[in-house]
Amino acid sequence: MSSSKKYFTCGPTELYPIVSDAIIKALDEKIPSISHRGKEFEKIFSLTVHELKKLMGIPDDFMIFFSSSGTECMERIIENIVENSSFHFVNGSFSERFFKTAIELKKNSKAHKVDFGKGFNFGEIVIPEETELICVTQNETSSGAAVPMKQISELKDKYPKKLIAIDVVTSAPYQKIDFGKIDIAFFSVQKGFGLPPGLGVTIIRESCIEKTIYLKELNNNIGTYNNFIDAALYYKKNQTTVTPNTLGIYLLGKIAQHLNSIGIEKIRFETEEKAKMLYDYFFTRKDMKIFVENPFDRSKTIVVIDCGEKQKQIKKHLADNNFIVSSGYGKFSETQIRIANFPMHSIEDTQKLISVLDEADF
Amino acid sequence: MSSSKKYFTCGPTELYPIVSDAIIKALDEKIPSISHRGKEFEKIFSLTVHELKKLMGIPDDFMIFFSSSGTECMERIIENIVENSSFHFVNGSFSERFFKTAIELKKNSKAHKVDFGKGFNFGEIVIPEETELICVTQNETSSGAAVPMKQISELKDKYPKKLIAIDVVTSAPYQKIDFGKIDIAFFSVQKGFGLPPGLGVTIIRESCIEKTIYLKELNNNIGTYNNFIDAALYYKKNQTTVTPNTLGIYLLGKIAQHLNSIGIEKIRFETEEKAKMLYDYFFTRKDMKIFVENPFDRSKTIVVIDCGEKQKQIKKHLADNNFIVSSGYGKFSETQIRIANFPMHSIEDTQKLISVLDEADF
Repeated sequence: MSSSKKYFTCGPTELYPIVSDAIIKALDEKIPSISHRGKEFEKIFSLTVHELKKLMGIPDDFMIFFSSSGTECMERIIENIVENSSFHFVNGSFSERFFKTAIELKKNSKAHKVDFGKGFNFGEIVIPEETELICVTQNETSSGAAVPMKQISELKDKYPKKLIAIDVVTSAPYQKIDFGKIDIAFFSVQKGFGLPPGLGVTIIRESCIEKTIYLKELNNNIGTYNNFIDAALYYKKNQTTVTPNTLGIYLLGKIAQHLNSIGIEKIRFETEEKAKMLYDYFFTRKDMKIFVENPFDRSKTIVVIDCGEKQKQIKKHLADNNFIVSSGYGKFSETQIRIANFPMHSIEDTQKLISVLDEADF
Repeated sequence: MSSSKKYFTCGPTELYPIVSDAIIKALDEKIPSISHRGKEFEKIFSLTVHELKKLMGIPDDFMIFFSSSGTECMERIIENIVENSSFHFVNGSFSERFFKTAIELKKNSKAHKVDFGKGFNFGEIVIPEETELICVTQNETSSGAAVPMKQISELKDKYPKKLIAIDVVTSAPYQKIDFGKIDIAFFSVQKGFGLPPGLGVTIIRESCIEKTIYLKELNNNIGTYNNFIDAALYYKKNQTTVTPNTLGIYLLGKIAQHLNSIGIEKIRFETEEKAKMLYDYFFTRKDMKIFVENPFDRSKTIVVIDCGEKQKQIKKHLADNNFIVSSGYGKFSETQIRIANFPMHSIEDTQKLISVLDEADF
């Protein structure tokens, strides 16, 4: 039975329409059977890196490491880049997860916390001297709050000697990243790239590896097979440290190639159009409320709506019309919905989702 | 262009024939888009665990944790089970990798090493008192040497208070495991299960988690999101700690179900028949030599052959006939071939591979 559901969930989400055909082609060519130490794999790896760099405007002096999830990216970044202390801007569950990762790895890390759904007054926050890595969750998937790239750039201007890592798990590839002002960015593919889950991507400035080498010389624990020194060595050979999710890497290349053929500017324009459609619509509803109060802090890709006690009813009405949205996160799981706005969500389907909501009062 | 290659490689390897259809069905049902926190996922997780437990005879008091690779399994096992010292039987590159993992995680671990391709005199080896975990690479993928289950059982009888972890990466599900005599086993799915790479599976006795809790209380580093305490909590809910390779978990369930429909006894019988065909054949060749000298130490699933300087020519002859085999590992990469003998490799194709070799002298 073929599914007629449309997933407007925050990830895993709707697959990009070309994914099915790309998987069938990969099966036909037996891509999942090839050795990750052979020429055929190296060609796939190289194409994926090339297309992704083109799509996201990633400079030549950045490398791309593949792992299994966005959460693994957090772990490996802290292990390989932080000796004693990272500093975290926390305004939701995923920024909290990044901070917690550092604490679990026994770092003496600090956080500036604001309420779920709020932005930060960057100008007023003093980052401690001892901070080695500043961690910013650029797009907070749990609350729908986003940090404008300009503010991240200003952080770098203010603290030029500190490294900056940004979580763009649910904003890539929409979010234009100024790679001159950050050192590490990471995402997973089951969000804006519309792929099956099981692949994390870390984009990292080559010079960051000097820090990992320093940590290794100090006999710090930098993890095992996925440490950044080995990952960098294999990256130069168009390979991974261990057998990876080959199919995932192959599909990421195909999607990036497809998005390049559309053009990233068009994707960004359409994402902003759809975000406007959604926010404008919810602004008119009396029985639902945009959660992130300050329009300046609102994510373009994750739209979070307070539904109060009608949440279940609203989700059901959407599901009855084949639109699947995410529940709120954590303590908001029964009162909020989260609607994703990724490149595979068409203007037409977004309009339909709005129309379905508009049919009913709750 | 459809590939007519047959992968007799050690993994990634030939996909099990039903995999393509199972993937197409999963795409049709939008399995890669579902939430890993929902009922639909829990049903998939539960079915996979049920079928795998049935197939491998895993007792109820063992849990199954999913990760991204066999190498990740090694890392998580050492992090979560070993305070100071593990003991490793090393006779090849993967047993060395397990040992190295412990050293990289700053454990004071020890190893008993024998030459590549040799077995162990278990009776003569004294395991140090301080050992917390004994690590045995039951099937050494790099050299084609295997440890009979009986010897592992005897280890447990001799050291009943020490935990035992076995690497069955390339012997599962063929290898019958006596779960009464071990505490942890792990594998990855791109070997004997004939699936695309990107999923590691750890089978662990529930009581092992007491050790992880103890380590946590000592403030040891037990890793972050994939620590065994959290993994156990989510396992009880038929969930994973983070967004997993959902498609991989789904496919593993489908394959295990399929193998159960054939019957594990038949699979074991056929594996042994095919291994006999291969070893008997290579015994007759004067220009190629079975690498593992003692028949008692020979793996049933990884057949390693010394080809000397003719290796390239032999590999090419096989490839020209659409049979892809692995090169030797490490320093044997240019002189050996490794032929896998997994459940998806039919008796007929194995016979054909032998016939193709038999056509030529080298």
